[in-house]
Amino acid sequence: MKILLINGANLNMLGQREPEKYGHTTLKDIETQVIEKGKELDCIVDTYQSNHEGDIVDKIQQAKGTYDGILINAGGYTHTSVVIRDAIAATNIPTVEIHMTNIHSREEFRHTSLISGVCIGQVVGFKELSYIFALEGLINYLK
Amino acid sequence: MKILLINGANLNMLGQREPEKYGHTTLKDIETQVIEKGKELDCIVDTYQSNHEGDIVDKIQQAKGTYDGILINAGGYTHTSVVIRDAIAATNIPTVEIHMTNIHSREEFRHTSLISGVCIGQVVGFKELSYIFALEGLINYLK
Amino acid sequence: MKILLINGANLNMLGQREPEKYGHTTLKDIETQVIEKGKELDCIVDTYQSNHEGDIVDKIQQAKGTYDGILINAGGYTHTSVVIRDAIAATNIPTVEIHMTNIHSREEFRHTSLISGVCIGQVVGFKELSYIFALEGLINYLK
Amino acid sequence: MKILLINGANLNMLGQREPEKYGHTTLKDIETQVIEKGKELDCIVDTYQSNHEGDIVDKIQQAKGTYDGILINAGGYTHTSVVIRDAIAATNIPTVEIHMTNIHSREEFRHTSLISGVCIGQVVGFKELSYIFALEGLINYLK
Amino acid sequence: MKILLINGANLNMLGQREPEKYGHTTLKDIETQVIEKGKELDCIVDTYQSNHEGDIVDKIQQAKGTYDGILINAGGYTHTSVVIRDAIAATNIPTVEIHMTNIHSREEFRHTSLISGVCIGQVVGFKELSYIFALEGLINYLK
Amino acid sequence: MKILLINGANLNMLGQREPEKYGHTTLKDIETQVIEKGKELDCIVDTYQSNHEGDIVDKIQQAKGTYDGILINAGGYTHTSVVIRDAIAATNIPTVEIHMTNIHSREEFRHTSLISGVCIGQVVGFKELSYIFALEGLINYLK
Amino acid sequence: MKILLINGANLNMLGQREPEKYGHTTLKDIETQVIEKGKELDCIVDTYQSNHEGDIVDKIQQAKGTYDGILINAGGYTHTSVVIRDAIAATNIPTVEIHMTNIHSREEFRHTSLISGVCIGQVVGFKELSYIFALEGLINYLK
Amino acid sequence: MKILLINGANLNMLGQREPEKYGHTTLKDIETQVIEKGKELDCIVDTYQSNHEGDIVDKIQQAKGTYDGILINAGGYTHTSVVIRDAIAATNIPTVEIHMTNIHSREEFRHTSLISGVCIGQVVGFKELSYIFALEGLINYLK
Amino acid sequence: MKILLINGANLNMLGQREPEKYGHTTLKDIETQVIEKGKELDCIVDTYQSNHEGDIVDKIQQAKGTYDGILINAGGYTHTSVVIRDAIAATNIPTVEIHMTNIHSREEFRHTSLISGVCIGQVVGFKELSYIFALEGLINYLK
Amino acid sequence: MKILLINGANLNMLGQREPEKYGHTTLKDIETQVIEKGKELDCIVDTYQSNHEGDIVDKIQQAKGTYDGILINAGGYTHTSVVIRDAIAATNIPTVEIHMTNIHSREEFRHTSLISGVCIGQVVGFKELSYIFALEGLINYLK
Amino acid sequence: MKILLINGANLNMLGQREPEKYGHTTLKDIETQVIEKGKELDCIVDTYQSNHEGDIVDKIQQAKGTYDGILINAGGYTHTSVVIRDAIAATNIPTVEIHMTNIHSREEFRHTSLISGVCIGQVVGFKELSYIFALEGLINYLK
Amino acid sequence: MKILLINGANLNMLGQREPEKYGHTTLKDIETQVIEKGKELDCIVDTYQSNHEGDIVDKIQQAKGTYDGILINAGGYTHTSVVIRDAIAATNIPTVEIHMTNIHSREEFRHTSLISGVCIGQVVGFKELSYIFALEGLINYLK
Repeated sequence: MKILLINGANLNMLGQREPEKYGHTTLKDIETQVIEKGKELDCIVDTYQSNHEGDIVDKIQQAKGTYDGILINAGGYTHTSVVIRDAIAATNIPTVEIHMTNIHSREEFRHTSLISGVCIGQVVGFKELSYIFALEGLINYLK
Repeated sequence: MKILLINGANLNMLGQREPEKYGHTTLKDIETQVIEKGKELDCIVDTYQSNHEGDIVDKIQQAKGTYDGILINAGGYTHTSVVIRDAIAATNIPTVEIHMTNIHSREEFRHTSLISGVCIGQVVGFKELSYIFALEGLINYLK
Repeated sequence: MKILLINGANLNMLGQREPEKYGHTTLKDIETQVIEKGKELDCIVDTYQSNHEGDIVDKIQQAKGTYDGILINAGGYTHTSVVIRDAIAATNIPTVEIHMTNIHSREEFRHTSLISGVCIGQVVGFKELSYIFALEGLINYLK
Repeated sequence: MKILLINGANLNMLGQREPEKYGHTTLKDIETQVIEKGKELDCIVDTYQSNHEGDIVDKIQQAKGTYDGILINAGGYTHTSVVIRDAIAATNIPTVEIHMTNIHSREEFRHTSLISGVCIGQVVGFKELSYIFALEGLINYLK
Repeated sequence: MKILLINGANLNMLGQREPEKYGHTTLKDIETQVIEKGKELDCIVDTYQSNHEGDIVDKIQQAKGTYDGILINAGGYTHTSVVIRDAIAATNIPTVEIHMTNIHSREEFRHTSLISGVCIGQVVGFKELSYIFALEGLINYLK
Repeated sequence: MKILLINGANLNMLGQREPEKYGHTTLKDIETQVIEKGKELDCIVDTYQSNHEGDIVDKIQQAKGTYDGILINAGGYTHTSVVIRDAIAATNIPTVEIHMTNIHSREEFRHTSLISGVCIGQVVGFKELSYIFALEGLINYLK
Repeated sequence: MKILLINGANLNMLGQREPEKYGHTTLKDIETQVIEKGKELDCIVDTYQSNHEGDIVDKIQQAKGTYDGILINAGGYTHTSVVIRDAIAATNIPTVEIHMTNIHSREEFRHTSLISGVCIGQVVGFKELSYIFALEGLINYLK
Repeated sequence: MKILLINGANLNMLGQREPEKYGHTTLKDIETQVIEKGKELDCIVDTYQSNHEGDIVDKIQQAKGTYDGILINAGGYTHTSVVIRDAIAATNIPTVEIHMTNIHSREEFRHTSLISGVCIGQVVGFKELSYIFALEGLINYLK
Repeated sequence: MKILLINGANLNMLGQREPEKYGHTTLKDIETQVIEKGKELDCIVDTYQSNHEGDIVDKIQQAKGTYDGILINAGGYTHTSVVIRDAIAATNIPTVEIHMTNIHSREEFRHTSLISGVCIGQVVGFKELSYIFALEGLINYLK
Repeated sequence: MKILLINGANLNMLGQREPEKYGHTTLKDIETQVIEKGKELDCIVDTYQSNHEGDIVDKIQQAKGTYDGILINAGGYTHTSVVIRDAIAATNIPTVEIHMTNIHSREEFRHTSLISGVCIGQVVGFKELSYIFALEGLINYLK
Repeated sequence: MKILLINGANLNMLGQREPEKYGHTTLKDIETQVIEKGKELDCIVDTYQSNHEGDIVDKIQQAKGTYDGILINAGGYTHTSVVIRDAIAATNIPTVEIHMTNIHSREEFRHTSLISGVCIGQVVGFKELSYIFALEGLINYLK
Repeated sequence: MKILLINGANLNMLGQREPEKYGHTTLKDIETQVIEKGKELDCIVDTYQSNHEGDIVDKIQQAKGTYDGILINAGGYTHTSVVIRDAIAATNIPTVEIHMTNIHSREEFRHTSLISGVCIGQVVGFKELSYIFALEGLINYLK
C-alpha cells in the first residue's frame, strides 16, 4: 500500500512559526513520524510539501495510479482552493483532511473548508497526532 | 485515568438507522470497542447515551472531579445546543468532538458545530474508528 | 393500523393559551376527536404530549415496530429541533406535520420548519381540523 | 355555497409532467374529484386553470360576490407573485393554499410562499388528496 | 402634449379594496381627475389599466411615438417586474412612478421598487393626489 | 395654517454643489418659491436649514404647538438618523419627505430612508418642484 | 404576592464555573439573597433550577394560578428556545429576564434573546445584583 | 428535426432599443438568420415572440410532441420566472438559453438566471451570433 | 461619589411623547427621582440632556476627573453612534446603559446597541424605574 | 489572425476525470479540433494548459502583441481568481469564456464567475462544442 | 498653498485615551508636527477639531475658496457619516483620509469607511506619521 | 537595514495596463525610486515581482533572517490569498501594505483585504508615491 502525504502552504515553517500555536515540532519530524507509523502498518508513505497551489494540483493528479490514498493538510489553501478540491475529485483517490489546530476556534474565514466535501474524513486539532490518526483512518478505510 | 464517552440524540439507533450512511455496527459495539481500547491504554472508559439535551448537560456537570476527559458525539444537538457548549466550558474538562459521517457533505445546517469552539479537537467521518482516534487523541493530550 | 399522535411543547395549554389565536378547544378534546375519527377509519390512535424534546425523540424511536404512522404537532420545537427531525428519519415511519395556526403569518422565526423535509405532508391553519385532515391523509398514504 | 378552484401555471400538465413526482392523475381527474366531493357536501365547485398570472388575478377579482371561498394551487407563481397575493387580500374571500408535493423538500426558492400570509390555511404534500382536505377545511371554515 | 396613465394589478379594485387603506375613490374617479387636470394644463391624458404584466409591457412599447410621457402605478408588479422596467428603458419615454400609500411603512417586500431606477421621480403616499402631483411633475419635466 | 420647511445637511450648498445633479437653483430660490406658493394657498411657510442633526431635532421638537405640518429634506441624514425619525414621531406633526434627485438610482446606501416610515408621503426626483408638490400634498392632507 | 425565580442551564455551576466571569457567589447564595429581598418587600419567592428545557416549560406552565410574576435567567436557552418563549406567552404571567454578565460583549450568538420579546424588561450585567433589581422591578410592575 | 425559437419580453424592440447595447439588427433579422441556418442544417425553425410570461408557458407546453428542441431568450423573465422554468422541466424538451449581451457585466439582479438550471447550455454575449451558436449546439446535442 | 446622568435625543419630550409607550412622567420628574435616590445613597447626581450627538461626546469627555460613573440613556443614538461609544471607551469611566421601553420588542433597527459593548450593564424596560436600578447597580459596582 | 486557447486547472485530466460529466474526449482531442476549426477559418490557434494560476497570468500577459484573441476555460480558477481577471483586463485582448458543463446546475460556489465581467461572452454546457462556438464567436467579433 | 487639517470625534483625547493603542502624543503635538512639515513644504496648514458631525460639515463647506486641500481623520464618524461624505463631494476639494491605527484589525464596524470613496487616498496605521504622509501625498497631488 | 519590496500579480504590466488608472510609470521606475529613497535613508531595498502566489509565499518565508521589513503590493491576491497572509504572520517581519489606486472606490470585491489584518499599516491611492510613504513609514517603525 502506498500513501502520499501532502503539506500545503507555510507548513514548511512548522517549528519556527508561532510555536505557541503549532508547537516546536518541525515538518521533518512529522513526516518522519508518519513514515515510521506507515512502516509499522506495512505501508509506504511518500511526503511532499509546497507553497504553490498549482504544484499541489499537479502532485495530486500524478498520484493517480501510484498511490492508494492521500493525506492532505492544505494549510491556508483549505479555505480558498476550488482547484485542489477538483483535483481530489478528478483523481478519485481516497483522501483524508488534516489540521493541527482547531480551525473552528480561529478567524471566521478559517471555519469553512472547500476540501472537506470531497474527503472521506477530517482530523482536527491534535497537533502532530492529527497526522497519525489520519494515516490510521485512511489505511483502515482502504482495507 | 478516567474518561466519559457521551453519545447524544438518536445514536442509540445505530445499526438500525439508515445503515447505508452509518453501517450495521450498534452503539453497544462501539462502546465495547472504546472500552477495550481504553483498557489497552490503561484508562477506564464509562459510557452514557441520552436523547435529552438536559441529561447530557447534567452528565457533563457531574463529570467534574470524576473524569479526566470527555468524548462526545452530540448527534443533532451539535448544531443547536448552546447549553452543552456552556456545560463543557463550565466544567473545563478536556473534550474531543466525534462524528461518524462527514457532516460537511450533508445538509447545510449540519456544517456548523456550536461545540467545536470549546473542544480540543474533532474526528470526523471515519465511522466507528472516529471514536478510537478520538480516544487516543484525548489520552495523548491528557499526558 | 396503528397511529401515534404526538403533541409537542405548550400544546397541553390549549384552551387556556391565547384563545383568540387557538380557540377554546382543549388538547383532550382534540385527542378524543382524532381517536374517534380513527375508529371510523378502522385505525387505532394513541396519543402523547410532552414539553420535552428528548421525550419526543424517545417516543418516536419507540414507535418503530408498533406504529404504522405518526402525526406530529411539535409546537415551538418545529423551528429549532434537529433531533426530532433525525428521529423521524431514523425510524423511517411515515409522518405528517400539523399546525393549528398559519405559521406563515406569524413571527419570522416561525416560517421555517426543520421537520417538513422528512414528513410526507403538512396541514396548516385549520385549527383542530388540521388534525383530522392529517389523519385522513396519513391513512390514505399508508394504504 | 359556491367555491372556486384555481390551478395556476403548469398544473394542466399533470399526468404528463414528471409522473414520478406528481403521479398519473390528470388535472381533469382532480377537478372531477373535487366537484364530486363538493356535491356530497352541498357545495358547488367551479374550476379554472391558467398559466397567466394576470388571468388568475382577473378571476380572483371576479369571484367577489359570486363565490364564498377559493381553493388555489398557484404552481410556480406561489413563490413570485405579489399581485395574486394582493388580489386575494383585495377580494377578501377566504382562501386555502394547496400544494401536491412537499415544497419544503425541493429547491430553496420553493420554500417561500408569498400567498400563505393572506390564506387561512395550507395543505401540502398529499398529492390529489391535498385538494380534498383543502375543500373540507374551507367549507368547515365558512360554516 | 400626450400622456399615458397606466395602472397595474388590482388598482381596478380601488374603492372596494381595503377602503381604510385606499379610501372610497374608484379608479374611474382618479382617471377623471387626472384627465381634467391634464386639460387644464393643455395636455391629453389617456388611461389604461391591466392586471397583466405582459399587457403593460405591450402598452408601454406602443406608447413610443405616440406619447410624450408615462405615469405608472404598477401595483404589486412594482416589486417583482424586470420586464416593465426593461420596457420603460427600451421606449425611453420619461416616466413617473406613483404609489397611493406609503409603501415604506408596509411589508418589507414592498420597500423595494424595480422600476424606480428608470423613472425620473416618484410620488408616494398622497392617495389620489399622488396622481395629480405626478402629472404636474411630468409635464414640467417635459417642458 | 403654518408650515415649517426644514433642509438638512449640505442643502445650503445648492447651486454650487454638483450642478449637473442638482441644477443651478440655490436654496434661497427654493425657499422663496415655497413661501410664494404657500401664500397662494393661504399658508405661512417658515424655513430652516442646518448641517447639524441635533439642531434639526431641536427644531422639530419646537415646532410642536406652532406649526401644523413639516416639510423635510434631511439630505444625508435621511439614511442614518434614528433621532430625526424619533423627533417626528414624538411631535406627531404631519410630515412630508422630499428629495430633489432620484435616490433610488444612486449609491445603495441612499436607497433606504429611516424617515419614510413616520412620514405621510414622499416626493422624489423632481428637483425644486419636489418641494412644491410636497407643500401642496401636505396642505391638502391637513385640510 | 408570590414570585417564581427560574434559573436555567448551567447556573447551578455558579461559583465553580469561570469565576473570573461570574464571581464566587453560588446559586444558593443568590437564591437566598432574592428570598430575603422578597421578604423585605412582603413577597414570597420560590426558586427553581434545571438544565432541562422541558422542565422549565413545565414549571412556567404550572406557575399559572400560583405565582404573580416570574424572574428568569434561562442561561444558554436564552438564545435558542422558542418553547420557553411560548410558555411565557401562554401563561401570560409578567416576566423579567436576567443576565449576570453583559451578553452584548460576548460571542455573537449570545447577542440575540428569543425571550426578550415576551418579557416586560431585562436586567443585564450586574452580576448577582441583576437578580435584586429584577425582583424590585417586577414587584413594582405588579403593583 | 423541428426547433422552436422563443423570444421573451422586449426583444421585439430590438433595433430600436438602446442600439449601443443591442445593435441595429431587428428581431425579424435575427429570426431570418436562425431559420436560414436551420435550413442549412436540415432543420425547421419556427419562431415566436411574446411579452407575456403566460403565453411563453403556453407555447412551451404546446411544443411537446411537435418540437425536438427549444431555443429561448426569455429577456427580463430570465431573472424572475419560476413558471417558465417549470414549463421547460415539465415538457422535458432539450432547451438552450440565449443572451445577446453579457448579463454578468450589467445590474446585479441580471446575474442570476432561474432558467439555466433546466437548460443544457447557455450562449451569452455574442449579439445575434448567440442565436446561431445556440442553434448549432442544440442540433448537435439532439444528434 | 459623583455620578453624571446623561439623557440623549428626544428624552426631553418625555411626558408629551407617545404617553401610551413612555408614560406621563417628565424628564424633570425622573431626574429628581434619581437625584433623590442618589442622596439616600450618599452620592451626588448631576444631570444633562441634549439632542446633539457631539454635545454628548463633549460631556462624556469632560466627565473625566470629575465623575466616578455615568448613567446614559442615549435615545435614538444608541443604535447609530460610534462616537458616543468611543467617548465612553476613551474616558474609561464605568457606565450603565438605560432604556425605559423594551427595545427588543420594537422595530428591528432598535435591537442593536452600539453602546452596550463598552458599558458594565443594561437596565431595559422598567420605565422610570430603569433609572433607579441603573443608579443602584452603578454605585454598587463602584464600591 | 492568431488566437490563444488557455485551459486551466484539471482540464488536462479530461477523458479520465468523471467521464459521466465531461465525456471521454481528451484535452488533446479538443485542442486538435479547435486548431482544425481555426485552419478552416484562416486563423492560427496555439494551445496552453496549466494547473498554476500564476502561469496562466504570465501567459495572458505574454499574449499581448502576439495574439488577437483569447479563449479561456479557467476550470476551478473561474470562481476564485481575481488575478486572471486582472490579467485579461490589463492586456485588453478580446477574450471568450468557456465551460464544458452547465456550471449553473452544479455546486453553488460554481455559479459565480469572476472572469465573466471582463470577457465579451460565454459559452456554457455544450461539452467540447463549447470550444468551437467560442472560437467562431471570437473570430467573428475580431472581424 | 493652504491646507486644512480636520480631526473628528474623540481625537482631542489623544495622549489620554487608551495610550497602548494610540501612544502618548497629544493632538497638539500632532498638529504642530503637521504645521512644521507644511512650512518645510511651503504650505500653510490650519487645524480644526470637533466632536460635532455638523461642525465638521460646516467647516468643510467653508473651506471652499480658502483651502486647496483637506486632511481628515474623522474618528468614529468615518463609519457612520453620510453627511461628511456629501460635504467633501459638494466642495470638491481634494481630500486625504487618515487613521492612526489599523482599522482593519479592530471591530468589524470599523472596517467600512463611508468617506474613502470620495477621497483621493488613505494612510492607515502609522500613528502620528500617518498625518505626515497624508500631507506629503496631498501636496504632491495638488502639484 | 534591509527591506524587501514585493509586487504581486500584474504589477509588471504597469505603464502598459490601463494607464488612465495607473499612469505611465513602469514598475522598473517605481522600484528605482524606492531603492533611491532607501539609500537616502541608509537602507538597502531589494525588489521582487511575481504573478505566482506560491512564489510570493516562498519569498516572504526566505525573507526571515535577511530582511528587517517588507513592503507589499499584492495586486489581485490582496483580496483572495489566505496563504500570503499566513506567510507574513509566520515570518513575523513588520510589513506595510500598498495600493496605488483607491481600492475603496472600485469593484466591491476589492474593498476587502485579507492581508491588512497582519500588516502594521496601509498606504492607498497615491499612485507611485504610495510606495515612498510606505517605505518611510516602515523605516520609522523599525527604528
